[in-house]
Amino acid sequence: MELTVYLSGEIHTDWRQQIKEGCKAHNLSIEFTSAVTDHAASDAAGDLLGAEEKNFWRDHKSAKVNAIRTKTLIESCDVAVVRFGDKYKQWNAAFDAGYCAALGTPYITLHDEDIIHPLKEVDAAALAWATTPEQVVEMLNYVVSKA
Amino acid sequence: MELTVYLSGEIHTDWRQQIKEGCKAHNLSIEFTSAVTDHAASDAAGDLLGAEEKNFWRDHKSAKVNAIRTKTLIESCDVAVVRFGDKYKQWNAAFDAGYCAALGTPYITLHDEDIIHPLKEVDAAALAWATTPEQVVEMLNYVVSKA
Amino acid sequence: MELTVYLSGEIHTDWRQQIKEGCKAHNLSIEFTSAVTDHAASDAAGDLLGAEEKNFWRDHKSAKVNAIRTKTLIESCDVAVVRFGDKYKQWNAAFDAGYCAALGTPYITLHDEDIIHPLKEVDAAALAWATTPEQVVEMLNYVVSKA
Amino acid sequence: MELTVYLSGEIHTDWRQQIKEGCKAHNLSIEFTSAVTDHAASDAAGDLLGAEEKNFWRDHKSAKVNAIRTKTLIESCDVAVVRFGDKYKQWNAAFDAGYCAALGTPYITLHDEDIIHPLKEVDAAALAWATTPEQVVEMLNYVVSKA
Amino acid sequence: MELTVYLSGEIHTDWRQQIKEGCKAHNLSIEFTSAVTDHAASDAAGDLLGAEEKNFWRDHKSAKVNAIRTKTLIESCDVAVVRFGDKYKQWNAAFDAGYCAALGTPYITLHDEDIIHPLKEVDAAALAWATTPEQVVEMLNYVVSKA
Amino acid sequence: MELTVYLSGEIHTDWRQQIKEGCKAHNLSIEFTSAVTDHAASDAAGDLLGAEEKNFWRDHKSAKVNAIRTKTLIESCDVAVVRFGDKYKQWNAAFDAGYCAALGTPYITLHDEDIIHPLKEVDAAALAWATTPEQVVEMLNYVVSKA
Amino acid sequence: MELTVYLSGEIHTDWRQQIKEGCKAHNLSIEFTSAVTDHAASDAAGDLLGAEEKNFWRDHKSAKVNAIRTKTLIESCDVAVVRFGDKYKQWNAAFDAGYCAALGTPYITLHDEDIIHPLKEVDAAALAWATTPEQVVEMLNYVVSKA
Amino acid sequence: MELTVYLSGEIHTDWRQQIKEGCKAHNLSIEFTSAVTDHAASDAAGDLLGAEEKNFWRDHKSAKVNAIRTKTLIESCDVAVVRFGDKYKQWNAAFDAGYCAALGTPYITLHDEDIIHPLKEVDAAALAWATTPEQVVEMLNYVVSKA
Repeated sequence: MELTVYLSGEIHTDWRQQIKEGCKAHNLSIEFTSAVTDHAASDAAGDLLGAEEKNFWRDHKSAKVNAIRTKTLIESCDVAVVRFGDKYKQWNAAFDAGYCAALGTPYITLHDEDIIHPLKEVDAAALAWATTPEQVVEMLNYVVSKA
Repeated sequence: MELTVYLSGEIHTDWRQQIKEGCKAHNLSIEFTSAVTDHAASDAAGDLLGAEEKNFWRDHKSAKVNAIRTKTLIESCDVAVVRFGDKYKQWNAAFDAGYCAALGTPYITLHDEDIIHPLKEVDAAALAWATTPEQVVEMLNYVVSKA
Repeated sequence: MELTVYLSGEIHTDWRQQIKEGCKAHNLSIEFTSAVTDHAASDAAGDLLGAEEKNFWRDHKSAKVNAIRTKTLIESCDVAVVRFGDKYKQWNAAFDAGYCAALGTPYITLHDEDIIHPLKEVDAAALAWATTPEQVVEMLNYVVSKA
Repeated sequence: MELTVYLSGEIHTDWRQQIKEGCKAHNLSIEFTSAVTDHAASDAAGDLLGAEEKNFWRDHKSAKVNAIRTKTLIESCDVAVVRFGDKYKQWNAAFDAGYCAALGTPYITLHDEDIIHPLKEVDAAALAWATTPEQVVEMLNYVVSKA
Repeated sequence: MELTVYLSGEIHTDWRQQIKEGCKAHNLSIEFTSAVTDHAASDAAGDLLGAEEKNFWRDHKSAKVNAIRTKTLIESCDVAVVRFGDKYKQWNAAFDAGYCAALGTPYITLHDEDIIHPLKEVDAAALAWATTPEQVVEMLNYVVSKA
Repeated sequence: MELTVYLSGEIHTDWRQQIKEGCKAHNLSIEFTSAVTDHAASDAAGDLLGAEEKNFWRDHKSAKVNAIRTKTLIESCDVAVVRFGDKYKQWNAAFDAGYCAALGTPYITLHDEDIIHPLKEVDAAALAWATTPEQVVEMLNYVVSKA
Repeated sequence: MELTVYLSGEIHTDWRQQIKEGCKAHNLSIEFTSAVTDHAASDAAGDLLGAEEKNFWRDHKSAKVNAIRTKTLIESCDVAVVRFGDKYKQWNAAFDAGYCAALGTPYITLHDEDIIHPLKEVDAAALAWATTPEQVVEMLNYVVSKA
Repeated sequence: MELTVYLSGEIHTDWRQQIKEGCKAHNLSIEFTSAVTDHAASDAAGDLLGAEEKNFWRDHKSAKVNAIRTKTLIESCDVAVVRFGDKYKQWNAAFDAGYCAALGTPYITLHDEDIIHPLKEVDAAALAWATTPEQVVEMLNYVVSKA
């Protein structure tokens, strides 16, 4: 069984890398996709279309250029993993989870126990809640390899 | 023109009331819907199905009972207004925005200027960003009444 | 808030009646729908189209005539309650639950604790599991009346 | 013509194996998929996410982890074969059939004649009812090879 | 239970009238819709947009003007009854049946026994085959009134 | 038969008024909807959300506020009439036609003969081409009243 | 550009062969699909599931077994060619056309001029009407090869 | 990341070529598709089906033959680039943009600053506005290559 897995959310730790390497170690047929995770590049994605004086429009343009990528990848993934860290607002991660929920795309949340209350709606629509990248790897291994 | 408008997000200020009263003052044919906004009742929504020892499952059950209401209302609204305040994580608001985006339901964000950066993806898929309930009222008045 | 609630499953106890009366006592704006629950009439639904010698075709014709009703009602309900009793196969109830799951229609399961294991897939896609009609009434009351 | 065929239901006899081997003997271009059919592993699928004291939540977690696999495979199959044996409740099989029906995915039921009455709704929405794996093989051979 | 029933097909006998009157006699809450059944008017539906010399284009324009009506009505009906008589090609009736099948809208065929072979594909996707308008009335009565 | 008809396109002649009055004269049960047709108000629709220095962003904001209305109305109409006049670019009219085409919503084009070549793609997906508001009225009268 | 083209309808002349050979002569990247065109085999498709005494049920079973193939192929084709000959009812061809129309799948009709009137609804929803297989080949050549 | 990009609109300058070559220089995995851009061939696409005396029907037939190609390609692309030049009506480009908008397919507009006002609705539903082919290339490079 092959899967395309979209990795959404936090970009300040190496959770994506851990999941990819863990799955590689199991030889799983999984293609991983994600938004551009280079923070500075992502914020500047719209700059090539001309400078903006207002922060709102700069962000707006960049977010939309990024959406060309993320919308395409989210709509074509089989499963998403949505990671919430302990810093920043991460509303884009919750937004992606809502997007998956409306599409009926299964997603897994990945976050610590101390934020289960604010994430209850996001978790309620998820198919699993993991606390470590290892658990995600184990789960994907089970989903893809077991017969 | 009649509209059904879903009011999503922050429950600690009276923004919902302001929008409803403002629209009423204009005699607009708008039906407003929203999640249960009584915080304690919302958190306890699943308790009637039996107590849970773990916080995760109590939240899980309550979030799902609430989803019976919110999923139904969001999927049947014409427009959503999604409010982000200056406190709390409000991931459910971002989740609702993502849900609307995937359904193609127009939504308006309502938040202050100081959080435009973390909300850039949410704003990028919105049809308008307002900073005050009055602006939302004016906009709805324009949308519904003007011919 | 108004709801249309489809009541699916077991037809040998008065659980439908209890839910209807409980909701009526709360003055809830809920319209209840269901399959034809007169067992003999339901089994004979296709007889008006001519007799069949083979049981398979008699059942087939009746099941399809009944589907004219159930398919229409399930596709137009907001929420379904799916009841599993302690007798009979009740595969039609599980079928309705799967149908709702694929449509994204929220449903509540209603069954005793001793059958949670065989119903785990059906419960996993449900938004709530209740053990008594009273709990269903309380939940619907919360969903519809609370603001 | 190539097909992806999802094999749903009973896991205590070798009907899946018979169908696969029969189709292989005909050199059919069919990819077979199914849920994890190792009963113990399937029941324990959620254990890697932490232990649960209540049976309901253990089942719930496992059923959802399994759903990451089954939902993906059912939604991407061309045809499903749904097998009902003479033991167990097998509500998950009926659930899968309902899911296929709502998606418009053709499915074939595979069961003995003595359970045609409780399966009448499930059979009514099926494109064929077979009583032996050999019949399923013959049918798939006809569907795929004949021109 | 209320239904909207689209009556498609043959326009040279009074089967529509019989069904409507039969349902009226039972006081059923059914709204009946259909294409324009005045043959001459239907063929001339496009003439108001200017004359055409070629028969193909005259038919084309009329068929499209008629489609403004039929497409709207078929897509909003709950159930269709598709009647095949013993004269004419009636490809539009089979076209309507295929349209309903793709939409998942239940339909009933109404035709004599001597044309079951050429109608086998159309009947295979139908939920019932009736041979008389009375049977259709009885069935609708059962579907709508029985509880 | 009742219809909701969206009137899209040119705002500098009184074609909307002519169609409405013509249909009123026939007592047709048609609800007409349209974008805000007050040109200055439409261009300024976003101004209530704050001024913009760049024309692009002023237009952008206004176009989106207008889209809250037009998207809702187009998605809920049964039929659209799309008018192309002899002045201005009217790309929004062609955009609306493409939107209807993708949704499968029937639409009628209304334009003079001298622009049939540039409108060939738009006309090819339309169900009728009219050259005068009177023809549109006649057609709607036929569609709605004839039985 | 690659295309999958479904060839529907008449099975008594070699029009399928002519189209396939014509496209092969042009080296077009087109995969052709169709129902089982061996008439006797098609009528007997359900016999492997057991004999039926009534013609209706024999036809019914065979038509559904065939639908496992045709439904899958029609829903995955890019374009359909629907052929109407001068014999037989060919309601299945009109049914396929209606099915394509509802799915939004482009189709081409292929028939002589003397049956344009009974086919007017089917032609009205088609993207082209051809009278010879050669025209279909030319059209496909244009569609696929031209840049 | 691989993309299929549909290039819609103006056919009188070499913007398509510039984008293709720019992307090729970056070794991007992008497949480009478009309508037939040979103007004369496109206008004559329907001629192979027989001559027409009226311009409207000649255009109609050609536009529909072209739609067999464009509808298929637009519905299967990931992203569209819609180019508006300074000449001609280009209603087909705006039509394509509306079609993408209704499907939820991301698109980029490519046009000069002097036509931002008439294109405001088209731009409002776009994910980016570029003024040069180089900007489109840079954007696609960012979307596809950055990680």
